Amino acid sequence: MSPAVGSTANRLVTFLSDFGTDDEFAAVCKGVVLQAVPGATIIDVTHAIAPGDVRGGALALLRAIPYFPVGVHLAVVDPGVGTDRNAVVIETADGRHFVGPDNGLLSPSVAISGGAVAAVVLEPQAWGLGDPSPTFWGRDVFAPAAAVLCGGESMYDLGRRVDPAELTPLLVPLAQVAGGQAHGVVLWVDRFGNAQTNITPEDLAEAGAEPGDHISFHHGNRRERMAFVRTFADVEQGRLLAFVDSTGQVAIAVNGASAAAELGLTTGAPVRISRAGAPL
Amino acid sequence: MSPAVGSTANRLVTFLSDFGTDDEFAAVCKGVVLQAVPGATIIDVTHAIAPGDVRGGALALLRAIPYFPVGVHLAVVDPGVGTDRNAVVIETADGRHFVGPDNGLLSPSVAISGGAVAAVVLEPQAWGLGDPSPTFWGRDVFAPAAAVLCGGESMYDLGRRVDPAELTPLLVPLAQVAGGQAHGVVLWVDRFGNAQTNITPEDLAEAGAEPGDHISFHHGNRRERMAFVRTFADVEQGRLLAFVDSTGQVAIAVNGASAAAELGLTTGAPVRISRAGAPL
Amino acid sequence: MSPAVGSTANRLVTFLSDFGTDDEFAAVCKGVVLQAVPGATIIDVTHAIAPGDVRGGALALLRAIPYFPVGVHLAVVDPGVGTDRNAVVIETADGRHFVGPDNGLLSPSVAISGGAVAAVVLEPQAWGLGDPSPTFWGRDVFAPAAAVLCGGESMYDLGRRVDPAELTPLLVPLAQVAGGQAHGVVLWVDRFGNAQTNITPEDLAEAGAEPGDHISFHHGNRRERMAFVRTFADVEQGRLLAFVDSTGQVAIAVNGASAAAELGLTTGAPVRISRAGAPL
Repeated sequence: MSPAVGSTANRLVTFLSDFGTDDEFAAVCKGVVLQAVPGATIIDVTHAIAPGDVRGGALALLRAIPYFPVGVHLAVVDPGVGTDRNAVVIETADGRHFVGPDNGLLSPSVAISGGAVAAVVLEPQAWGLGDPSPTFWGRDVFAPAAAVLCGGESMYDLGRRVDPAELTPLLVPLAQVAGGQAHGVVLWVDRFGNAQTNITPEDLAEAGAEPGDHISFHHGNRRERMAFVRTFADVEQGRLLAFVDSTGQVAIAVNGASAAAELGLTTGAPVRISRAGAPL
Repeated sequence: MSPAVGSTANRLVTFLSDFGTDDEFAAVCKGVVLQAVPGATIIDVTHAIAPGDVRGGALALLRAIPYFPVGVHLAVVDPGVGTDRNAVVIETADGRHFVGPDNGLLSPSVAISGGAVAAVVLEPQAWGLGDPSPTFWGRDVFAPAAAVLCGGESMYDLGRRVDPAELTPLLVPLAQVAGGQAHGVVLWVDRFGNAQTNITPEDLAEAGAEPGDHISFHHGNRRERMAFVRTFADVEQGRLLAFVDSTGQVAIAVNGASAAAELGLTTGAPVRISRAGAPL
Repeated sequence: MSPAVGSTANRLVTFLSDFGTDDEFAAVCKGVVLQAVPGATIIDVTHAIAPGDVRGGALALLRAIPYFPVGVHLAVVDPGVGTDRNAVVIETADGRHFVGPDNGLLSPSVAISGGAVAAVVLEPQAWGLGDPSPTFWGRDVFAPAAAVLCGGESMYDLGRRVDPAELTPLLVPLAQVAGGQAHGVVLWVDRFGNAQTNITPEDLAEAGAEPGDHISFHHGNRRERMAFVRTFADVEQGRLLAFVDSTGQVAIAVNGASAAAELGLTTGAPVRISRAGAPL
């Protein structure tokens, strides 16, 4: 294989998976990369994606990618391992290389990185790998591909070119505004119990709620009134708040505690937000 | 900004937080550092500090710092994020740079590193950062500051100097010896269920108990008799023991099991230790 | 100490322990290595081995080692810390250096690395270390030894040579085939709930079951019928399967769910597998 331009700039490998860190799966993939590129810097994005949760993995990767240098971005949440789903490398307009299954996991991150400019379906036999384990392509296909890219080689040595338009998209529900309400879902509950929704500040504005207002938050058959503020400390300890989180989405929190625990919110739960009237 | 002396010696960034590793928060902060200093070595101290537990974070950092090379020490347990609490860089007599909120988190580690010789309150606007997210200063202020320091630049480019004497101390309860008893609290329960107290061997000596003695351990309305020995294996499997742990504090353990589980000990629990009489 | 040949090739340290990552224990050991070798690459294999579970640690290390470059392999699962069990460095035929307690933890990995060609019992006093903490040899003996080796120095500076034949083996139960049944145990339950057994495909062949057959899986007083296939997706979502896992052992899984949860399988559970007749 011929060395590509900028090989030394490509020594970073970020790594996201649903492998957890209790087992040695993630470590084994790193070993495979280090065998090929001894000086590689490998950064874990997270390995705590729920087993097989492609959407959860895609959203976590999306939230993280803008803060990483251009590099090789390995992501393995692959419930279809061993089936005929494709394994791919995708090059984006900003020079990143994403490696993972073509199941939507990479799509939002590819989009935020300027979109795909090239894609290759991995053909392990083409570059001298043996038959991969039908249950651990992370070790036998994805990590070796990441290692080749990290070493500065060309993605075109790894398989056959495909039209990026044929890649699998990720279907993420969009919030809707109707009848003075923003209708959405919980996308993510973080360690602090903050519940991020797919509702944007623009959606709330369209529904008539601006920062500084109070809002009504509906979920299931419950309704909570809370302030729509800048940060946790803008309300008293233990009080609910709505805020625009660090990724730009509307989220629900409790100052100093877990909103998800207090309200019973979980990923995927439908929610509605409207402007509340004056305090009773 | 002008390069500082010793820039290449400063490439280590240690990182402690309450972010957990299930979400991508910690990874994002690392990405920010690596954007600025591609070859940085970033070592996680732990990200499992309980959300907002400044004291727990301060004690974990204190236990770890003496074993790290001089470097940049990033620590983010910041329940006051978005309020007017300061974000600081503190330089210590031994050449370390601590970066984090000025809420006591850094104080014990600063003290054990020879004390503060200089401090700066971070002013993100001063060094060209945009407005930080009011809920994620780790990403938008602390990690960028760590990156600047890691790159060998001067801390004085990051904000305004303040008198180290004005920094927020951490209040850690001291054990008291009275009436032949050492009175203290549980500071930390580790993965093995060992319960570290704030009682020192010197406190026990003052209370009349020396290694080799038996002691009475009082907590709540329970009292346990155990040997005060060197290590787990000095008592039979399954038996309680008191010992001087690897950080020099008196701790309670069970050989081969969890003392915390067996005795119901949690962080902050008040305890008393006295010399026990001869075995009954 | 005199530099050894190939010092620059030895900069990788892999690290497995039962320390967890909630406490700072693992980080402290890394700090000790980095104090001596600032540019070392330290890769966590896992720190989630159950406290004191030497066999679980040995098996995890065994599964991971073949995928790592030759390096220093630090492993600490050491329920006998502070007793007279030995701390050792073992050099293998393929050039690896294993560092850890001589309690069987390292033995399977040493064997798979070509076997031991040399071994040294660590004598901390010999190389200028003070008295180690009787409860944290990871920090005070094992990590310093790994650092010395990582820095390219000779293992013979670290203690006294011993005959590798005197090292402690690990007793791993072997599966038995009798009466048309393969009798074994569960070796490992992974994050996905896949239950790896100590039964090999060769054992199953001897018992008369080949890939493509259906098998009867006996555990406790339950019996499950399932297909013996290549991968998860070879059965319908939610169905049990037997397969040869990525390390070559026969394992039980559920496509898209946890076999361990569904069948109540835990490490050490005795199991039997035989060829099943035609579907009823």
